[in-house]
Amino acid sequence: MQLFELCGKDEDVRFSPYVWRVRMSLMHKGLPFDVVPVRFLDKKPLENAQSKTVPVLNDEGTWVKDSFDIALYLEHTYPDRPLFGGELAEGQARLLNEWATQTMVRSIFPMIVADIHSRLDDKNGAYFRETREKFLGCTLEEAQADRDAKVVPFRQSMAPVRNTLQAQEFLCGSSPAWADYCVFGTLMWARIASEFALFEVDDPIMAWTDKMLDMFDGYARKAKLGY
Amino acid sequence: MQLFELCGKDEDVRFSPYVWRVRMSLMHKGLPFDVVPVRFLDKKPLENAQSKTVPVLNDEGTWVKDSFDIALYLEHTYPDRPLFGGELAEGQARLLNEWATQTMVRSIFPMIVADIHSRLDDKNGAYFRETREKFLGCTLEEAQADRDAKVVPFRQSMAPVRNTLQAQEFLCGSSPAWADYCVFGTLMWARIASEFALFEVDDPIMAWTDKMLDMFDGYARKAKLGY
Repeated sequence: MQLFELCGKDEDVRFSPYVWRVRMSLMHKGLPFDVVPVRFLDKKPLENAQSKTVPVLNDEGTWVKDSFDIALYLEHTYPDRPLFGGELAEGQARLLNEWATQTMVRSIFPMIVADIHSRLDDKNGAYFRETREKFLGCTLEEAQADRDAKVVPFRQSMAPVRNTLQAQEFLCGSSPAWADYCVFGTLMWARIASEFALFEVDDPIMAWTDKMLDMFDGYARKAKLGY
Repeated sequence: MQLFELCGKDEDVRFSPYVWRVRMSLMHKGLPFDVVPVRFLDKKPLENAQSKTVPVLNDEGTWVKDSFDIALYLEHTYPDRPLFGGELAEGQARLLNEWATQTMVRSIFPMIVADIHSRLDDKNGAYFRETREKFLGCTLEEAQADRDAKVVPFRQSMAPVRNTLQAQEFLCGSSPAWADYCVFGTLMWARIASEFALFEVDDPIMAWTDKMLDMFDGYARKAKLGY
């Protein structure tokens, strides 16, 4: 299996939040995979899956795009060690996936966007700056400048995750599964691209993050940081 | 089975969002139940469950409080017609439950709070006004006055639900289950207490709401409105 991932100017720095959702899902299933680096301006490898974004999975000729569709593909093709555990759970998971994308990704993005730019080479960085500044309506540096203010409502918006982790050990209950990888994968994006602290050290989300970093023999903890 | 519910000055007007989550769950399981009205200032009936809030379920002497715990109780006691469908799904559902409570309930509350007050008798209304105005830091009428502005970010915050319903028929996939009842139940609160339109008529959430109102022979559609 090949997983196509976004990388920085340092090829070993892999920061896509969606790729991390899939990485952890593959580890959960115990499926071996190779990672293939892709840059913003070099997305030819993704064309086999008719995709313009990572992640893309190539499972011996079966090409799948979109992190959530890849998770569903893995679940249906390799049903051992469930990521969801049934049709109702898959339905619910789509809602959680949308929540993580619409709420978490959108809130985190402006707080780390100039840091992400710093991880890119000149050519990819110029492309990133142009497209993202158009989206943001300001410079990357302006978006990030008031992140100490932006982080306050972000932390509040994470109350559902925080409260859940006060009632149970993982977001999927007594052991981690896809919902954990979805939220954690999104946080890995910030961890790898930026030194900015999204949470206070005593936030219950930090204790859970630590457990997630330790999983699979410290797989995520060993990931190369971009700074 | 007895379900203890909050009611207005008209005893047949039952508007608690948490009660509606349980009502729909009981209908889903096909379990017969009686509804017992409770008012804000008359919560003696809830003491058997050591609860100060509705809903409370009395299943022939087994008392259960909290809408999510009641749903779990029903799932484990009456496993036919699953509401969740497994441990991972129950874990995920707690996160969705927290999201619906932290995000939906908190956003909707100030937009309908004076309308809720109008549904109460003088004594319960005075109690409601005093406690809720302390919580809000303004009068009920002030909180509700700018609801045309408040509804804009609320509609945006519902993007996860909207996007999910564009990919699948119900929040639990191809058929409704607990996640649907959780979100729909929260919307029943506004439907029964207030004439204010939370969504534009062409919002995909409205089409799904219509399907939910039709379920179980139009059970929710027949509920008495408070106005």
